[in-house]
Amino acid sequence: MINKLIAGIRKTNAPIVVGLDPMLKYVPEHIKQKAYADLGETLEGAGEAIWQYNKGIVDAICDLVPAVKPQIAMYEQFGIPGLAAFKRTVDYCREKGLVVIGDVKRGDIGSTSEAYAAGHLGSVQVGNSMCCGFGEDFATVNPYLGSDGVKPFLQVCRQEGKGIFVLVKTSNPSSGELQDRLVKTCAQGAEVFRPIYELVGEQVAAWGEECMPEEGEYSYVGAVVGATYPEQGRILRRIMPRAFILVPGYGAQGGRGADLVHFFNEDGLGAVINSSRGIIAAYQQEKYARFGGEGYADAARAAVLEMREDIASALERR
Amino acid sequence: MINKLIAGIRKTNAPIVVGLDPMLKYVPEHIKQKAYADLGETLEGAGEAIWQYNKGIVDAICDLVPAVKPQIAMYEQFGIPGLAAFKRTVDYCREKGLVVIGDVKRGDIGSTSEAYAAGHLGSVQVGNSMCCGFGEDFATVNPYLGSDGVKPFLQVCRQEGKGIFVLVKTSNPSSGELQDRLVKTCAQGAEVFRPIYELVGEQVAAWGEECMPEEGEYSYVGAVVGATYPEQGRILRRIMPRAFILVPGYGAQGGRGADLVHFFNEDGLGAVINSSRGIIAAYQQEKYARFGGEGYADAARAAVLEMREDIASALERR
Repeated sequence: MINKLIAGIRKTNAPIVVGLDPMLKYVPEHIKQKAYADLGETLEGAGEAIWQYNKGIVDAICDLVPAVKPQIAMYEQFGIPGLAAFKRTVDYCREKGLVVIGDVKRGDIGSTSEAYAAGHLGSVQVGNSMCCGFGEDFATVNPYLGSDGVKPFLQVCRQEGKGIFVLVKTSNPSSGELQDRLVKTCAQGAEVFRPIYELVGEQVAAWGEECMPEEGEYSYVGAVVGATYPEQGRILRRIMPRAFILVPGYGAQGGRGADLVHFFNEDGLGAVINSSRGIIAAYQQEKYARFGGEGYADAARAAVLEMREDIASALERR
Repeated sequence: MINKLIAGIRKTNAPIVVGLDPMLKYVPEHIKQKAYADLGETLEGAGEAIWQYNKGIVDAICDLVPAVKPQIAMYEQFGIPGLAAFKRTVDYCREKGLVVIGDVKRGDIGSTSEAYAAGHLGSVQVGNSMCCGFGEDFATVNPYLGSDGVKPFLQVCRQEGKGIFVLVKTSNPSSGELQDRLVKTCAQGAEVFRPIYELVGEQVAAWGEECMPEEGEYSYVGAVVGATYPEQGRILRRIMPRAFILVPGYGAQGGRGADLVHFFNEDGLGAVINSSRGIIAAYQQEKYARFGGEGYADAARAAVLEMREDIASALERR
């Protein structure tokens, strides 16, 4: 799947992931009105609204980008009907040829992570049948529980040719509270202090060595590093040379094209940049207001084209 | 809700949480056969089997314990039908008067944690209606993203009188890889090295100060500390005096009654001990084999009674 992602990036010339994080305040009125008229102001109505909204965006952008990243929380808040919309979105995107990164940030003790890995990337046995729960191509994973919580994902990745992105340095303002803490380590007999994100980055690199596809340069184990922390991105790029970096925080969270160059390797690969709100709610920005709510999908397309240009020109200038 | 938990512990004399983690290999054959006959060897069949299994256990133990803790991964692996069984289990347990701790280990950047908090502990607005996604009483939360990821939960806890348990020192063998790392801190002008779990424990205590019920001694913000690490439990008990500690790892993972005393305060409160497999799959142990698969719920009841005795006598001996 990492090779499919790379092929998609090469084909589209867009190392871009569109974050499908459908908050109701982004969904245009005409879509909400229809869904609520059909199903009421209920969880079912909300699920229908976000599915229809997603479908419009996916249809508008699926030839421009290699991948999408639905954030499961935005669906899970609407209970079962919301998660049914998540599943429908995953299936539809895969039909359209997109790589689907489930932004689930799961992670637990061994047997429990096994269940998450099976449900999101693999399959579960029911009697004599193998059944698929959600079936994304990649999942994001939280490293707080250590290797126990990550290794069950690695096993499924090897079996299914799928992948994970481990949280290393997240894009949010408070990510440093824990992730930047300096830890006592030993190097050549001397005490050295290093931030936690570097140590997690080294683990990502080590897990990746156990988890390489038969052909290709990048492992099934990637990392999440926020666009809002370009300096840390530069360091982590070196620590994890064969890991793809999933970079959230572009656009609405403050990251810009020029900040992103450090996340890429010399081969022009090694990073995919996520934008959510900046694309899916582009029509709510002044710049794209001319599209209006009815034209929200076209606005999303225009925003992807602009983002592609921003990243390409930043990479050319470096 | 913390006061409801405390009242339940006092009433039952059992600081016990039953972990409803229904792996299919625990579900007795007669239940699986009926579910598969009705719905096939499908996700729906699996969802029905785990729901029926849970219902039997809940009916058998609901007068003995104050709380249950369904581990959502065990449901999520079966996709939408599995999560529907989760929701049904949550609703049924609440009807029975049990406190429900959703073991979801969520945690993300601010706006995303808001969605998780609303979906699991609060409600979401759809048009002019307020709708409830899953509706547990407590949720477990991962602290890797820092305060941003936790504060949205605090807000919902204050509004709804609900609670969270933040992962501090987890029960699994590799929990120390990250959680035990020694971090450079400053105390009275001198450098001091402290493990990460202590720093997270201090944050739990601070978040708890912002989040106290109107009456009572314990805050809405608890902590997860594994029974397998009693020494760390003793230290964390002091660091977070007003936090309830949710203690997994009893029984099947190796923790014993004598290890647990450090997790309790002098008032005999402050901890709830979780056992999952040791109770819900008790009939598969030699000790309870006489119950057989048909008697799995009675075996679970017997195992709860024995666990209650083990904890009570350990607390008396201390």
